Amino acid sequence: MEIIECIINISEGQNKENVEHVIDAVRQTAGCFLLDFSSDADHNRTVITFIGNRQSLPVAIRELYKRALDRIDLRQHKGEHPRMGAVDVVPFVPIQDATMEDCIALSKQVGAMIANEFKVPVYLYEESQANPDRKNLAKIRKGEFEGLPAKMKQPEWKPDFGPAEPHVSAGASVVGARMPLVAFNVNLGTPDIKIADTIARNVRGIGGGLQFVKAMGVELKERKIVQISMNMVNYKKSPLFRVFEMIKSEAARYGVPVVGSEIIGLLPQDALFETAEFYLRCENYTPACVLENKINGVLYQAIK
Amino acid sequence: MEIIECIINISEGQNKENVEHVIDAVRQTAGCFLLDFSSDADHNRTVITFIGNRQSLPVAIRELYKRALDRIDLRQHKGEHPRMGAVDVVPFVPIQDATMEDCIALSKQVGAMIANEFKVPVYLYEESQANPDRKNLAKIRKGEFEGLPAKMKQPEWKPDFGPAEPHVSAGASVVGARMPLVAFNVNLGTPDIKIADTIARNVRGIGGGLQFVKAMGVELKERKIVQISMNMVNYKKSPLFRVFEMIKSEAARYGVPVVGSEIIGLLPQDALFETAEFYLRCENYTPACVLENKINGVLYQAIK
Repeated sequence: MEIIECIINISEGQNKENVEHVIDAVRQTAGCFLLDFSSDADHNRTVITFIGNRQSLPVAIRELYKRALDRIDLRQHKGEHPRMGAVDVVPFVPIQDATMEDCIALSKQVGAMIANEFKVPVYLYEESQANPDRKNLAKIRKGEFEGLPAKMKQPEWKPDFGPAEPHVSAGASVVGARMPLVAFNVNLGTPDIKIADTIARNVRGIGGGLQFVKAMGVELKERKIVQISMNMVNYKKSPLFRVFEMIKSEAARYGVPVVGSEIIGLLPQDALFETAEFYLRCENYTPACVLENKINGVLYQAIK
Repeated sequence: MEIIECIINISEGQNKENVEHVIDAVRQTAGCFLLDFSSDADHNRTVITFIGNRQSLPVAIRELYKRALDRIDLRQHKGEHPRMGAVDVVPFVPIQDATMEDCIALSKQVGAMIANEFKVPVYLYEESQANPDRKNLAKIRKGEFEGLPAKMKQPEWKPDFGPAEPHVSAGASVVGARMPLVAFNVNLGTPDIKIADTIARNVRGIGGGLQFVKAMGVELKERKIVQISMNMVNYKKSPLFRVFEMIKSEAARYGVPVVGSEIIGLLPQDALFETAEFYLRCENYTPACVLENKINGVLYQAIK
């Protein structure tokens, strides 16, 4: 069964009634299933996580835009989190029986729909964006809602879809396909933050380490230890076990042990299966070896 | 969603029409789903793997018995595999939202039903059997169909359910709850079978090693290496990573490297998740960390 995850960020995290009204767009769409949502009042922002397929997701997103544009006015919006749209970011993540290419095509279809129906300019990002200078969300969003009118006058910031000016109350949206994010932290048996900082700099992509790892050193003061806190933006190409072994080896150079690790939020099963495969030196592992994958395949077939 | 796996062994592996007729009992039962079946003509035996719940499994099994008893006559049966019943073994394995206790209760309910409706004597085995001398399948089945009339006269082989004599054409059945089996082999970088035999003896339960591991040494002649071939009969209590590390350490004593491993057939996802958890020294892993578990939970809820 095709499963694509969509993690929509809307610029409303204070008015519960508005948040529920927007989320109901997902709940009411056949073939879409709400996994989770979390509102942050300080950020004044809500992250809505749901799944569906190429047919059902555009239906839910159209209704969600209708409701969000009706209730959210960025001219009145204050919050700590950077934002440029009432519906700020719309990422698509391939989960099952869907490829990255499927998600790229879907993001372009949805981007065009948003621009045409709601007159909201759309920027493609990450895997959906061919221009390397426009792949990064922070770069696209720099200047935020308030800076949009000036930014959009620059030819290099012409949107991928829709009008050349921001929507008066809803700004602009960023839409695209990306890999699932894995937040993974490794704890070191030392209180010395300098060691964590150094190792973080060495293992992360920008420091010459693993390309799809973002890392920084963090103090865990209560436990009197330090941590390498990481975002794994492509766990297939820069896997957990490889960064873990690299940190072990770097820490050993200071005589420091790795005392533990933490998974933050959810991670795809493959990230753990491939870790087991690596350490067991398994010669014939495939996802088809897993009993539950077989069972879910049969059950999904029955649902169809 | 409650999922219990049932892996029925019937004593027919040659007549395809008979095999299909019996398997149709599973296919036709609402709430049961056929995962797999495989017939072996030399063994004259078919293994039928399906899933269902406490409501649907007894319905499928009743119909399966009706069909099997109609088509299989052990007085005419020849095959290499030991057998004592037309329907030889009926194991129940807890997979999801079902405990071992649930499967034990189900096995007793199904055992009583088989005895009452089909007049087939039933022996409980494994987790369903309180008497330690009657837990082991090979021990119960010793003497096979032909030896049953004499064996059943012994007071210690009075069946748990049903008549005191074998069914004239269908013999007796063995029914019970057990853990999923994991078949896991570890390859050593040496052609010396004595090393594999010694390590196998040391890591397996009966040799003083890990209690729920059965192991033997095997030569892989084409590759000119040897293998520790294992059945992990309780991967929760004797996990893959522990036996793997033990074999690594024992092999190192001979200067021999572990060059790989193999998973045979299917294994439960937990066996791999817990391996990853061990090697990553993860402090907060639970099955709820896995995205697909969250997704399947939401989808199953929707099916209900």
